[in-house]
Amino acid sequence: MARATAEATAAGLAGLVVAPGPDLAYLCGYSPTAITERLTALVLAAGREPTLVVPKLERPDAEKAVGAPAVRLLDWSDGEDPFATAGPLLDPAGRYGVSDNTWALHLLGFQAALPGISFTSLTDSLPMLRAVKDTEELERLASAGGAADAAYRGILEVPFAGRRETDVAADLGALLIQYGHSQVDFTVVGSGPNGADPHHEAGERVIRTGDTVVLDFGGLKDGYGSDTTRTVHVGPDVPDEVRTVHELVRLAQQTAFEAVRPGVGCQEIDRIARRVITEGGYGEYFIHRTGHGIGTTTHEPPYLVEGEERPLVPGMCFSIEPGIYLPGRFGVRIEDIVTVTPAGGRRFNNTPHELGIVA
Amino acid sequence: MARATAEATAAGLAGLVVAPGPDLAYLCGYSPTAITERLTALVLAAGREPTLVVPKLERPDAEKAVGAPAVRLLDWSDGEDPFATAGPLLDPAGRYGVSDNTWALHLLGFQAALPGISFTSLTDSLPMLRAVKDTEELERLASAGGAADAAYRGILEVPFAGRRETDVAADLGALLIQYGHSQVDFTVVGSGPNGADPHHEAGERVIRTGDTVVLDFGGLKDGYGSDTTRTVHVGPDVPDEVRTVHELVRLAQQTAFEAVRPGVGCQEIDRIARRVITEGGYGEYFIHRTGHGIGTTTHEPPYLVEGEERPLVPGMCFSIEPGIYLPGRFGVRIEDIVTVTPAGGRRFNNTPHELGIVA
Repeated sequence: MARATAEATAAGLAGLVVAPGPDLAYLCGYSPTAITERLTALVLAAGREPTLVVPKLERPDAEKAVGAPAVRLLDWSDGEDPFATAGPLLDPAGRYGVSDNTWALHLLGFQAALPGISFTSLTDSLPMLRAVKDTEELERLASAGGAADAAYRGILEVPFAGRRETDVAADLGALLIQYGHSQVDFTVVGSGPNGADPHHEAGERVIRTGDTVVLDFGGLKDGYGSDTTRTVHVGPDVPDEVRTVHELVRLAQQTAFEAVRPGVGCQEIDRIARRVITEGGYGEYFIHRTGHGIGTTTHEPPYLVEGEERPLVPGMCFSIEPGIYLPGRFGVRIEDIVTVTPAGGRRFNNTPHELGIVA
Repeated sequence: MARATAEATAAGLAGLVVAPGPDLAYLCGYSPTAITERLTALVLAAGREPTLVVPKLERPDAEKAVGAPAVRLLDWSDGEDPFATAGPLLDPAGRYGVSDNTWALHLLGFQAALPGISFTSLTDSLPMLRAVKDTEELERLASAGGAADAAYRGILEVPFAGRRETDVAADLGALLIQYGHSQVDFTVVGSGPNGADPHHEAGERVIRTGDTVVLDFGGLKDGYGSDTTRTVHVGPDVPDEVRTVHELVRLAQQTAFEAVRPGVGCQEIDRIARRVITEGGYGEYFIHRTGHGIGTTTHEPPYLVEGEERPLVPGMCFSIEPGIYLPGRFGVRIEDIVTVTPAGGRRFNNTPHELGIVA
């Protein structure tokens, strides 16, 4: 909280307003049972005691939070105006960073109570607040990556042909849990033409011999995320274009990975992956950014996307996941979580990149 | 969508901006796989075609939504400014209703792109948009309530003494699933002093003979919510004060229920329940509002709370759940979901209100 307050001050902000979600959990270890219409907000400002505003009936929960001893708790009761309680904590003419996922209901409440105030999202004002991980966080991300790798090795052994995507997805979920995940967040099984939709999860389609299948899966282990993608083929007879496209994606992923080092701009990594695929003739089919940060959430800064000029810093962790999607036919994606070290990139996913062959 | 647009116009709004969540699912049947930093928003305005702005790589998902044929899809790609795509859909000097749970990141994006625009939350501007349920919705809520009732009857048969709260909570969750819930949202087992914290879920405390235990549980069945609370006692030797407090809560719940009829103000129901408990001498221990609406979400308008003057309308559905919480000792709460009919209230929970005795 002290570092966040200092970074806010350095960024010209009067302070931060943080709603329930990953930022609140990160800053004071409090995650309410549910995120609801009742206002909960942590207010940080230089020279002031960190203050957590909570609904009165959730106060006992907040008192049990890891970071509770370091914050002042202020509660409000049903029927009272929560902004009458929280408003006086803010400079009525100040500019505050506000957590991205704060509800509009609450942001508008602050804006109405304090018409002279202004807000900027944390992604815009302090995007790197949680981006650089400490040693313990890196260990957790490495451990989550290792568990996802074990799940991938496991899924290579299950039958694909004749089963629905949802069946393989269920196997993937069970493997993630078996290898220590507390929560499965996504299990993409995109077979044949479904693989050409990067966000297709898993459906009723029955997988057939000859299908190319995108497997993208992850969740939380000890509070930190995993996210890895490998592309497999059902049966050994791989069409030439699948081989060509897969090799191009592999090369793009590897080239982008090798470019990781402190000081390189985030968008450079995206450009490098994109250049490989464009030069291979498939640029128009790489329809998403190259990567996203990961930590206590699966999507967070830094984003490896055109326009993100900020430099890589040791301790940052993100996906590198180029893909090619041929509508109506198939898709290929390869994704590793990577961290920046002074010497370059280090992968948290280490299963082979080659096209897996399944039965 | 046509009714929402008409209601927005009648409320003096230029239109609505609806982010992923219950409002979007209600209006156009679209629920993205995940709610993320990528902008998705439905824009409704009188005389204009409903338009759903989506990230390009989620477009295939959006095209499959139930309501997709009734909306125009507009996509934006990673690296582009989504507000450059969505902004032109809005009157730059208009006032728009915005779904409560829209991320601050996105609301601030609209505010920055269109400095002359203003927003008001749907809870403030159109609180009753989803509050009046149609026949099919009422059937689903009744069915969810019936399933929760079956779970309560089941839990009365399991042993409590000597088991942890989390064990009984797991039983409750399994019973909800057994009786048709697709999702368990909360299983509060508040034994002894834990019952005095209304939002305590379930912990490691081992339940003992002589404990009073608050059981509050619910989830989703066919997309609609259940939420019911009963209080039980472990063993037949019930202390006098537990009997007194329980009888007072029962009387408050019943009195409030009997006051339900079209035209009565929401806050009146709260006042009536509170008056019974206050006159019984326990007013200071009834520390939350009397109820909340329920539908596709567990908390939504109408709220039965002081200050909510809007009248009850046939088809509204909400909880009536007075409680008394004696810190360090025990709590009692009784909760039914109730709908308003022209003839008065109708309960969706119909298990006995008397103090259940468990072993």
